[in-house]
Amino acid sequence: MKTYFSPSSIAVIGASPREDSLGGQILANLRYGYAGLIYPVNPNYSEIQTLPCYATVENISGPVELAIIIIPAPAVPEALASCGRKGIRRVIIESAGFAEIGEKGRLLQERCLAVARAADIRIWGPNCMGLVDIPKKFFFTFMHPNIYKDGLIEGRISMVVQSGMLSAGFLADLMSERAVGIAKACSIGNKMDIDECDVLEYLLEDDETDAVALYLESIVRGRKFLELADRAKKPIVLLKGGKSRTGAKAALSHTSSLAGNARLQDSLLSLAGVTIARDFQQMMEVTRALAMIGRTPANCRTAILTFSGGAGILSCDMIEQQGLRVAELSASTKKELALIFPDWLPASNPVDMFPAFAVKGAVAAYDGAFNAVVKDPRVDVLFLHFFVGLYSTYDRLKLFKEAADREGKVLILWVIGRRDALRTFKREAQENAIPVHGELFRAVECLAYASRYTLRKKTPQLIFTGKHKLLPKAASILSACTEHIWDEFDSKRLLKTYGIPTVEEKIVESAFAATIVAREIRFPVVLKGLVHGQVHKTESGLVCLNITSVADLKASFADLTRRMKGKGQILLQQQMPIEYELIVGMVHDEQFGPCVMFGLGGIFSELQKDVVFAPAPLSTSTAKELIRRISGKKLLQGFRGRKPLDMKLMAEVLVNLGNLATACLDIEQIDINPLVIYQGKPIAVDATVIKKAVG
Amino acid sequence: MKTYFSPSSIAVIGASPREDSLGGQILANLRYGYAGLIYPVNPNYSEIQTLPCYATVENISGPVELAIIIIPAPAVPEALASCGRKGIRRVIIESAGFAEIGEKGRLLQERCLAVARAADIRIWGPNCMGLVDIPKKFFFTFMHPNIYKDGLIEGRISMVVQSGMLSAGFLADLMSERAVGIAKACSIGNKMDIDECDVLEYLLEDDETDAVALYLESIVRGRKFLELADRAKKPIVLLKGGKSRTGAKAALSHTSSLAGNARLQDSLLSLAGVTIARDFQQMMEVTRALAMIGRTPANCRTAILTFSGGAGILSCDMIEQQGLRVAELSASTKKELALIFPDWLPASNPVDMFPAFAVKGAVAAYDGAFNAVVKDPRVDVLFLHFFVGLYSTYDRLKLFKEAADREGKVLILWVIGRRDALRTFKREAQENAIPVHGELFRAVECLAYASRYTLRKKTPQLIFTGKHKLLPKAASILSACTEHIWDEFDSKRLLKTYGIPTVEEKIVESAFAATIVAREIRFPVVLKGLVHGQVHKTESGLVCLNITSVADLKASFADLTRRMKGKGQILLQQQMPIEYELIVGMVHDEQFGPCVMFGLGGIFSELQKDVVFAPAPLSTSTAKELIRRISGKKLLQGFRGRKPLDMKLMAEVLVNLGNLATACLDIEQIDINPLVIYQGKPIAVDATVIKKAVG
Repeated sequence: MKTYFSPSSIAVIGASPREDSLGGQILANLRYGYAGLIYPVNPNYSEIQTLPCYATVENISGPVELAIIIIPAPAVPEALASCGRKGIRRVIIESAGFAEIGEKGRLLQERCLAVARAADIRIWGPNCMGLVDIPKKFFFTFMHPNIYKDGLIEGRISMVVQSGMLSAGFLADLMSERAVGIAKACSIGNKMDIDECDVLEYLLEDDETDAVALYLESIVRGRKFLELADRAKKPIVLLKGGKSRTGAKAALSHTSSLAGNARLQDSLLSLAGVTIARDFQQMMEVTRALAMIGRTPANCRTAILTFSGGAGILSCDMIEQQGLRVAELSASTKKELALIFPDWLPASNPVDMFPAFAVKGAVAAYDGAFNAVVKDPRVDVLFLHFFVGLYSTYDRLKLFKEAADREGKVLILWVIGRRDALRTFKREAQENAIPVHGELFRAVECLAYASRYTLRKKTPQLIFTGKHKLLPKAASILSACTEHIWDEFDSKRLLKTYGIPTVEEKIVESAFAATIVAREIRFPVVLKGLVHGQVHKTESGLVCLNITSVADLKASFADLTRRMKGKGQILLQQQMPIEYELIVGMVHDEQFGPCVMFGLGGIFSELQKDVVFAPAPLSTSTAKELIRRISGKKLLQGFRGRKPLDMKLMAEVLVNLGNLATACLDIEQIDINPLVIYQGKPIAVDATVIKKAVG
Repeated sequence: MKTYFSPSSIAVIGASPREDSLGGQILANLRYGYAGLIYPVNPNYSEIQTLPCYATVENISGPVELAIIIIPAPAVPEALASCGRKGIRRVIIESAGFAEIGEKGRLLQERCLAVARAADIRIWGPNCMGLVDIPKKFFFTFMHPNIYKDGLIEGRISMVVQSGMLSAGFLADLMSERAVGIAKACSIGNKMDIDECDVLEYLLEDDETDAVALYLESIVRGRKFLELADRAKKPIVLLKGGKSRTGAKAALSHTSSLAGNARLQDSLLSLAGVTIARDFQQMMEVTRALAMIGRTPANCRTAILTFSGGAGILSCDMIEQQGLRVAELSASTKKELALIFPDWLPASNPVDMFPAFAVKGAVAAYDGAFNAVVKDPRVDVLFLHFFVGLYSTYDRLKLFKEAADREGKVLILWVIGRRDALRTFKREAQENAIPVHGELFRAVECLAYASRYTLRKKTPQLIFTGKHKLLPKAASILSACTEHIWDEFDSKRLLKTYGIPTVEEKIVESAFAATIVAREIRFPVVLKGLVHGQVHKTESGLVCLNITSVADLKASFADLTRRMKGKGQILLQQQMPIEYELIVGMVHDEQFGPCVMFGLGGIFSELQKDVVFAPAPLSTSTAKELIRRISGKKLLQGFRGRKPLDMKLMAEVLVNLGNLATACLDIEQIDINPLVIYQGKPIAVDATVIKKAVG
């Protein structure tokens, strides 16, 4: 990947003397900051922008490390072949007209890939805007030169964007208003070869990058992505397009990429330590905050220094809402604040500095309050509010940052004010690596993201790969049961071989046999009719609950037999007492491989899908982390005098299920629904195994 | 109120020649745009800023309609008395140092109020920044003249802000960046007399105001506020500070206002049609969208016209997430679009115009796509994305708006781009009354707010006042039960008099009596020990569930008798079959009066407080609307083959409870928990009435 980011020479295939053409813009962009050798390639010209122009890359005498292609799509395979002959191993195809335009383009794309593979060429693109390195002033892209005419702010965030036009528009917008400094911006387009994992892997090792923000419409190598994120020492923030049904349809036709199950993806990614963003600018503000804040203390006890009591109050509301803490100032801090403020103002958090403005002047009020609070051992975060352009300016950010660093405190800013003063202030904050936000909620939200990121990164590795050998008992059940959808008896037999606790049950051939079994496992019992292909047993009247006597049992047996018309078999099981129901399962995802699911079941699942996923196999700590991640985790902690969920047992169920999923790739899906909890212990009451359809 | 907004003459008590003093700034601000008579009042000068200055208002010869006071707090009562003698009936006290500084200030504030009442003076403030009318260029405020030096954008939104400093900072910020046009901005401070209801009532009738945005830390006259909102023909958007514990503490010390129970307030306000905002700028963007969009069609079928496939995809995601609909374009529109776009691009929603840029040019692509889509009968909303400052500009907003109005379509814009181009574009959008947003999520969120607002305003009046006479049977129970906290038997006796269905039950004196009653109401039954003051019956072992036989019953009776040690009495009740549990209640709120609560009970209430409130008395439609407002309403619609909740019966319970609450102000609180649902029918199984503590 290094060659893509710092090639010693570049050929522009499709260079043009026309300034407003894409080929002309690439050339102009290269000449703006790139100091290596530039070779325009175009058979129609002998010179472009004072540079000698070549008919093909093969005519260039020196070595060429990188080629950027911007010619009509149908001509690209031949250009690639030419690159191969010239010995160019790295190519960016910025032309459009490939997989994104449908079948014809998809075939063309495949031809390109074949040519590239044969010539040992790596391809970036097609249908992309290439890459930009702002500190180095490299613009390997056709984006309009106007973008950097306003001045680009360099920073330590790198971005990866799948959508082309967006990356350009977005850069322009960032530079215009928001003072988010950028290191590298990569537009990866159709990613027919180089994908997000390649670029991410490079950026995670890049010295100029402190955090990576990605806008993606698909993740091709899901498992690899999770592993990179899990190991990453830098924050990764992801905005994923194509979650909705309609959105997903558009994603398919846009960059011809598959958008998977959003709930599964979000859950896996967040488990791997990826921060999920909601919108473009929000993603950049979150990334900046994560990059600048680094690790936060566990508590995030936050002190608010404000010019407005109202903003202070709202900040408190938001901080508590986000699960952070409003700091309780220590006595010595209060004493020091009392010296600055009028007698009547109680020195407490939030610190409303406005009343001190009249007495001391605004700058002195900020200085005094800041210096008092920054030393407070009960304060982890200082949330400063500024109001610029009306009164004197606060050019203290450098000093504030130094003091905060010295004391090991986190600094975060909210600013409102007049246009030009705002811009100056935001630039100053960016230069001093202090996150600054124009909206209160955004600032607090970013702090919460940073706190969650820290918490996640404290836990050890959670994502594993590994092969498991299928246990012999399970293997024999698997080879015996050849159906696509298994009945619950066979399904639980398989689960049992992996140590998953299941309800006591037995197939009963007659009413007489049933009474013997029922006495063994004790009343009350349940009878279920298992008929091949009949998944909805309850709705078909094939479940008799709460059988408390032999008489009941006989009647129910007779009733079931009649309903089943001689097909299938009858299962007798213990009627479990229930405190609440969970749902556990596994699913084989195309991008992410086998994944284990955990969530609330029963009546809860009627209201909200409170489920989380982890890639199999799971370690015990991954399983425990998964259990902690459902929204309804409060329920598991015991309520109304009930026992809390036995975490060890529950984690075992998940680990074992993960092992089964890893060992047996023939299984497409498993549902344990419900997994009943009684006195804190889980028992699988109903289950379905779905084998991969053969064919 | 009219005098406050357009007085013919103004005295400034505390005027000063010092430019940077508050008194000096008020004078300068008045002279900037106010054309009426201005009288500086200050005993130390005979002339200020070329105007004759008076020692007291009584020395002014002509009539004075409004006085603005900006002198040290202790001198204010005398100044008010002087105003009274002069016949001034409207005063704005902008000085601080009143209730917000504690007890001493509170007493001073009370003295001022007494003087004002005696002299028939209305007071605005104290501790406020007065008011601003941007179209009229009236600045009755000490805010810094820098604020309007950048040029103020007039618009049709008025704001009411409790916090002083905030209103100024906020105005400056709005003007600087966001192009939100303002009509009137009112800072009401400690609101010792004039409060948010007075100002809101005026603004709801104000011809220059299309929507009202409020930042409040307390609502003094809650019921009045609800009534105003319920009747309002204009959108009201509210940001409430002081929700958190810490926040509430700060609110108390900040403007010495009480911040009530946030869940109750939010629920009541939203029932009354108030839109609840989350943050300052968000509030203004939401208000602007509501003001500009007006009513939305029920479906909000949205077409997206974008320059970026990625932004189109994300828009779809957000639209579906917010419960709106992505439009399915009609065949004729698709046909028209096909003429503009390259062959390979499927003409569908979202409409990605970028591929047409190269063919037709950007402006032609926008025009063509817009004109095709705006006529589509399957489209209600056009969500246009713009990218300004790089290529040619789109100066079509006026034409777009006219076409949209002609076709009865809603227009909403998202724009990114270069700084100056952005500003120009946003101003143009503001002038054409099209809401424009810098973040995608914000734009979609505003559309969703507009859609909910429309929906709410379609329902008739929901907030009622009224007196009810207490039913004689209820009155006799109320006078017989003198305890503060009632036991469930008495509580349900009272509820029964108001037609609330309760479980069959009877006090039983002996085990023998119990067996007779149990046979009457049929097994299974429940025995409960009622002991005075013992609220947690289950935890104290005073509940025996699931008694299925006479033997069980006798044993349980004996057991309970032993536990109760001769105190209290034993209640036998029918064991109800349960599908799910609700919780219903009433609470008497200080600001909002008696309110009825409705929500999910049982295990759900362990996870989330899914409860909503309505002010009593309730009409049947209010009750039904309330039931529809819980998040878990899906549960009530019937699930897994269960009957949906009987809306008529359920609404009756709420209406009757509201009538009881309205009729009897002696009751502080009622809990019906659980209200059990079986086969869609509600039955109160346990209940507690709490009477107001005497003294």
